[in-house]
Amino acid sequence: VSAADAQPGGQEPFFRSRWVAAPDEVEELDPVQLAPGFRAGGAHCGLKGGGRTDVGLIVCDEENVTSALLLTRNASAAAPIRVCREHCDRARIRAAVVNSGNANAETGEQGYADALGMSERAALALGLESESVAVAETGTIGVPLPIEAVLPGIDEAASGLSAAGGGVFSDAITTTDRWPKRCTLKVDGVTLSAQAKGAGMIEPKMATMLCFVQTDAVIEDPDAALRGAVDASFNRITVDGQMSTNDCVLLQATGASGKPLPEGLLEAVLKQLAIEIVRDGEGAVRVARIEVEEAASAAEAERVARAIANSPLVKTALFGRDPNWGRIAQAAGAALAGEDLEEIGAGAIDAAELGGEQAEAEIGVRLGRGEHRAHVWFSDLSYEYIRINAEYTT
Amino acid sequence: VSAADAQPGGQEPFFRSRWVAAPDEVEELDPVQLAPGFRAGGAHCGLKGGGRTDVGLIVCDEENVTSALLLTRNASAAAPIRVCREHCDRARIRAAVVNSGNANAETGEQGYADALGMSERAALALGLESESVAVAETGTIGVPLPIEAVLPGIDEAASGLSAAGGGVFSDAITTTDRWPKRCTLKVDGVTLSAQAKGAGMIEPKMATMLCFVQTDAVIEDPDAALRGAVDASFNRITVDGQMSTNDCVLLQATGASGKPLPEGLLEAVLKQLAIEIVRDGEGAVRVARIEVEEAASAAEAERVARAIANSPLVKTALFGRDPNWGRIAQAAGAALAGEDLEEIGAGAIDAAELGGEQAEAEIGVRLGRGEHRAHVWFSDLSYEYIRINAEYTT
Repeated sequence: VSAADAQPGGQEPFFRSRWVAAPDEVEELDPVQLAPGFRAGGAHCGLKGGGRTDVGLIVCDEENVTSALLLTRNASAAAPIRVCREHCDRARIRAAVVNSGNANAETGEQGYADALGMSERAALALGLESESVAVAETGTIGVPLPIEAVLPGIDEAASGLSAAGGGVFSDAITTTDRWPKRCTLKVDGVTLSAQAKGAGMIEPKMATMLCFVQTDAVIEDPDAALRGAVDASFNRITVDGQMSTNDCVLLQATGASGKPLPEGLLEAVLKQLAIEIVRDGEGAVRVARIEVEEAASAAEAERVARAIANSPLVKTALFGRDPNWGRIAQAAGAALAGEDLEEIGAGAIDAAELGGEQAEAEIGVRLGRGEHRAHVWFSDLSYEYIRINAEYTT
Repeated sequence: VSAADAQPGGQEPFFRSRWVAAPDEVEELDPVQLAPGFRAGGAHCGLKGGGRTDVGLIVCDEENVTSALLLTRNASAAAPIRVCREHCDRARIRAAVVNSGNANAETGEQGYADALGMSERAALALGLESESVAVAETGTIGVPLPIEAVLPGIDEAASGLSAAGGGVFSDAITTTDRWPKRCTLKVDGVTLSAQAKGAGMIEPKMATMLCFVQTDAVIEDPDAALRGAVDASFNRITVDGQMSTNDCVLLQATGASGKPLPEGLLEAVLKQLAIEIVRDGEGAVRVARIEVEEAASAAEAERVARAIANSPLVKTALFGRDPNWGRIAQAAGAALAGEDLEEIGAGAIDAAELGGEQAEAEIGVRLGRGEHRAHVWFSDLSYEYIRINAEYTT
């Protein structure tokens, strides 16, 4: 059974969230098909059970690729993150090697050597410099990586690279995702493909969101493009408020189409993927977007939005379909502790959809303190979250 | 069935946490007996069901009482908090009038008038100025207070004041506490009585921790004494990370014993009460104390301790008895995002008791960044928490 079988609405268009506007005249291709100039492959090396693909490789065949690589800011960053930071040329990433099942985090010097070893083995197999090969890993924290199993897996993945490898590569990064998060889109002569995996601790001690984006568009400043799109998508979601040790987003662009990236495409794709990740958060049943308006500053708006999105009381109200605006007022007030806040009663809080039937609930609060606003997407907090994180003990 | 019947270890001494040292030669009196010079009473006015006591009054008969009153910093402060801030003489509180069942929060101008009306009615019944009567309320947020029922309740409570009213007053402040939190202690010629109720949202939309302390000791600077003791107790606990709109702690001292408060007594009492509140947190099965050592500053130590204590992943590990040190490393790293943190492996994290049988688990982490430390007590996150907060919808 592939994860695709479990995808809700597999026949639905990729852009299906109420919060994401599909670009005009977007053509949806089979998501196994990568953007032109990219090939990918995968293998099973034993990190995950059931023979599932757990090693993946994606490579750009164009020498003059440009790239941007955003990494977690968690101070307990995993070994692959440290390798990407210290060893890789983040603006010229040709390939990425990934595993799922072992985060290679809190694994000491050996873990660093193992992550570097993955990059070097992939470089060898692909005829590249290891500085141009990014490493991403996701899974258990604090367990040594069985590198002797991973290295042959990399060779196997390299031997089966294909332009239709988006599916196998996407499988190689998932842990217990309930459905794959991927797309291949064509807009205005430019193709863009992307693969992501879920945030939150998807399995006990499994962390991390990963996202890979490939395109043949010309992107003058990939770093700025990626930062802007990530700020509007992955940086606006929370499942459990827990920043991972392994988060990683890679954008690669060949420029082969000779055309710029259509306005808003990257942001729309990452937004849809980010919302998918929340929707597939641990135990998640419903997703909500909280919009905070009339804040005194942008930072204040964001602080209040995050406080509401991470409040277990608001999250359980979302799960229980309880339009409990008092909990929103309480969380907002706590985030503004010591500040002067006029009473924000029911009239300033839109909580009706918290209690509604919508799978995607829109809620809002107006603080009456200024002109600034911010929003965050978040999942609910359910019995299943407790089961996933408490019952499967180490 | 009184809440006392449900008290675990009703025959156990008041000081029963591993984390609190009982003062030498402490004599434990019946907790219904208040410190000399204090009387209390209660009544049922209909805010809570089942005929339970929901209005309470406590008064000091000594005119020269000194007091300290600490109030929530939540910017959505409830009407009684605003009345205490704006109307009361916090250093000369003679009496407190309380209700449980309605928080009188987010209730607008009428709510403020109602809270002031409670203070004025109590003052009238007791022959005091309303400035010397504090108001505390706990319960549902956003529901108008049925003041026409509360006022006769205050009269009834005033008509039944008794030196043995500690029990009825304690009942008047509880919502769904599983056991009462109260004591009367005699040490070195000084008597101190205290009553508290639980933190967290004890019932759906029920907020608030309340604590009242009475003593015949001489306290030169009640405000400093209370702040110090609260910093070491109530300010070091978390159930769900949610600051209430109604938190309130009142210390009253008559000085009639002519003796100072025995060293450490107030802090020990508030610590034990604080730990009781965590132990009785919504759905709580286990309590843990996280100690962060070797931080670069006191603020950093506290930030990391709170991040760990409020992490749903650490809280579910505590519930599931999973010695999952990776989640502690992750939460610490997230709290220090962007900082330079050497890898904190298993050797720097004491997580064994997370997986142990102890009802009170002690866990620790050493950051290797400096000399500072901080600790926080917290409860686990269980199915029962979800049930309480999601199933009972409004």
